Amino acid sequence: MAFGWIDEQAELRRRAGLVRTLRPRPAESPLLDLASNDYLGLARHPEVTEGAAAAARTWGGGATGSRLVTGTTELHGELERELADFCGFEAALVFSSGYAANLAAVTALAPHGSLIVSDAGNHASLIDGCRLARGTTQVVAHADPDAVRKALGTHDGPAVAVSDTVFSVDGDAAPLAALAAACREHGAGLVVDDAHGLGVLGAGGRGAPAAAGLAGADDVVVTVTLSKSLGSQGGAVLGPARVVDHLVNAARTFIFDTGLAPAAAGAALAALRLLRREPQRAARARAVADELYTRLTAAGLEAVRPDAAVVSVRAPSPEKAVRWAADCRAAGLAVGCFRPPSVPDGVSRLRLTARADLSGAELERAVRVIDETRP
Amino acid sequence: MAFGWIDEQAELRRRAGLVRTLRPRPAESPLLDLASNDYLGLARHPEVTEGAAAAARTWGGGATGSRLVTGTTELHGELERELADFCGFEAALVFSSGYAANLAAVTALAPHGSLIVSDAGNHASLIDGCRLARGTTQVVAHADPDAVRKALGTHDGPAVAVSDTVFSVDGDAAPLAALAAACREHGAGLVVDDAHGLGVLGAGGRGAPAAAGLAGADDVVVTVTLSKSLGSQGGAVLGPARVVDHLVNAARTFIFDTGLAPAAAGAALAALRLLRREPQRAARARAVADELYTRLTAAGLEAVRPDAAVVSVRAPSPEKAVRWAADCRAAGLAVGCFRPPSVPDGVSRLRLTARADLSGAELERAVRVIDETRP
Repeated sequence: MAFGWIDEQAELRRRAGLVRTLRPRPAESPLLDLASNDYLGLARHPEVTEGAAAAARTWGGGATGSRLVTGTTELHGELERELADFCGFEAALVFSSGYAANLAAVTALAPHGSLIVSDAGNHASLIDGCRLARGTTQVVAHADPDAVRKALGTHDGPAVAVSDTVFSVDGDAAPLAALAAACREHGAGLVVDDAHGLGVLGAGGRGAPAAAGLAGADDVVVTVTLSKSLGSQGGAVLGPARVVDHLVNAARTFIFDTGLAPAAAGAALAALRLLRREPQRAARARAVADELYTRLTAAGLEAVRPDAAVVSVRAPSPEKAVRWAADCRAAGLAVGCFRPPSVPDGVSRLRLTARADLSGAELERAVRVIDETRP
Repeated sequence: MAFGWIDEQAELRRRAGLVRTLRPRPAESPLLDLASNDYLGLARHPEVTEGAAAAARTWGGGATGSRLVTGTTELHGELERELADFCGFEAALVFSSGYAANLAAVTALAPHGSLIVSDAGNHASLIDGCRLARGTTQVVAHADPDAVRKALGTHDGPAVAVSDTVFSVDGDAAPLAALAAACREHGAGLVVDDAHGLGVLGAGGRGAPAAAGLAGADDVVVTVTLSKSLGSQGGAVLGPARVVDHLVNAARTFIFDTGLAPAAAGAALAALRLLRREPQRAARARAVADELYTRLTAAGLEAVRPDAAVVSVRAPSPEKAVRWAADCRAAGLAVGCFRPPSVPDGVSRLRLTARADLSGAELERAVRVIDETRP
């Protein structure tokens, strides 16, 4: 029978305690949210939701075609200019998702005969970009600029190093300045995904590349998402104008995808303007993460010191991680639960996200619940 | 220098007349639109844009996380139930884009050791799905069920045939019933992308699989977009509940992507309800396409008889296609212009889309402009 083999896989997942199910949430959830990537608490901000609503009314429910046909509106252009300006790059190109932006950047910048040096902890979308690219991929040890340097030294011709700036699972930061130095020694490009850095790191949330002094560099390309700190949907690639022009002409997930919906562009633009006006939101997200980490370790929990707004707490097993997260939920707290195959090292953990709008009382309550439900 | 090679590629594109540039459009364009994929004219419909606006207000500017963490709202569930019901399938799963839905369906349903039989004219997103999948891909002649049968006969173990239902470039339809029969002879699954069929083909726009009597079949999986007939953004996979459960657990573009923005889900749901209430919109889109084809061929232009709402007109060369489209634009008509590398056969064409809301006078004007500007 067609698709018969998926029943066997489902049975294996059941036995391993790795079944995933969707849990639709209501509009007004009673849960305290430490699970979303809404780092600045902007997804529900009235300026952001009105930005979405006004854009839908003015521009329509969808972009109606590829960005190269009817799918580019003046609103997309406005968002691209302000995003590039904010992060300190010459140009930006907006995509329907961060996943699509990563596929585009890696595939278009790693042609046949090129080398891609990819961090072992990179996000799935970067890995899929490497697998789709015509170049050859060499995976190197996590956050190891010497390994990158060594890999680049083995290759003649175009090369890029590819890395998250903040790794999604543990929330640790990549050594960006050292990575850029390693790339420069070899004339290689550096492509970094700042999904978890934009809005959190750098002055006023300008992102990890800006914080590392790499904004505007002609050998650095940055991808970002509009769906985390900016509370919307979509992704973007930032870099030199010539690189962005190249993507317009060569990136399949740009050419063959419908443009980002106007409502998503409008929401992201409103959030970006809000962040410019209220730059303290970025520092507050970092401070909340630090406080969360301090309180968790004071309670004897094994957490990773956060470089941005993600705080990871180790769990003894996938089953116990699932149980722990469920017990937190029963006590009114939503936390992320990462386990195989979503974690590169096979270690299950609770994944907590700090939000700039969490109060001290909420933080205290969150840590108490996590501590009291520990396995 | 890093990325130095892209300047050479840019120069080659310039010389070949293949440079693509973005042309941002204003909110109220004076152009007559025969270029978008807004087949039913719903992207600007007030019910659809209000659906987007209300969803943003109620649910926020973004989904805030992966569908498996915080990114599934009751609104997503509602859209999935109504979409599955409308198209006649047991279950549906919504993605941030049709591209992501296609990557998910192909990769998750073609495991290591399996065979993918892929039509030579398939969309880039299906091709990228084949390239990402662990199974082996065999590309077969366009719209040729015997070639599919023959390819499946060479393989033991899981297999799927993958095809667009309506091919984007020429607007021709796949022989779905014959493809399904070929698959059934070999116990293979059939995965079809109904991006250009939903809302246009089948009773009341229920899509090409419904029209071919394949709705609800346990060996058929359908992907659709929310960004064409439904005037929004996003994609979905429709099929047996067990297949959808498998995707929730195995599809990387589902697990590692932020959920579709509420505004996009709200717009698509409003459009779907509108289509249910006004089923004649689907037949009207087909009638407009037929009339467009009849008038173009009566004027002596070389067009492909449309099976859905796309009408393709041959151009003598890429340069002349670009010039033709530009002359149409100067005369107030927006048309698509497809040329290498976006066309599988290297033939450049104007690509016209019929919209259900085009009037007779608009059609007449469109054909007159295309005829008068012909190279």
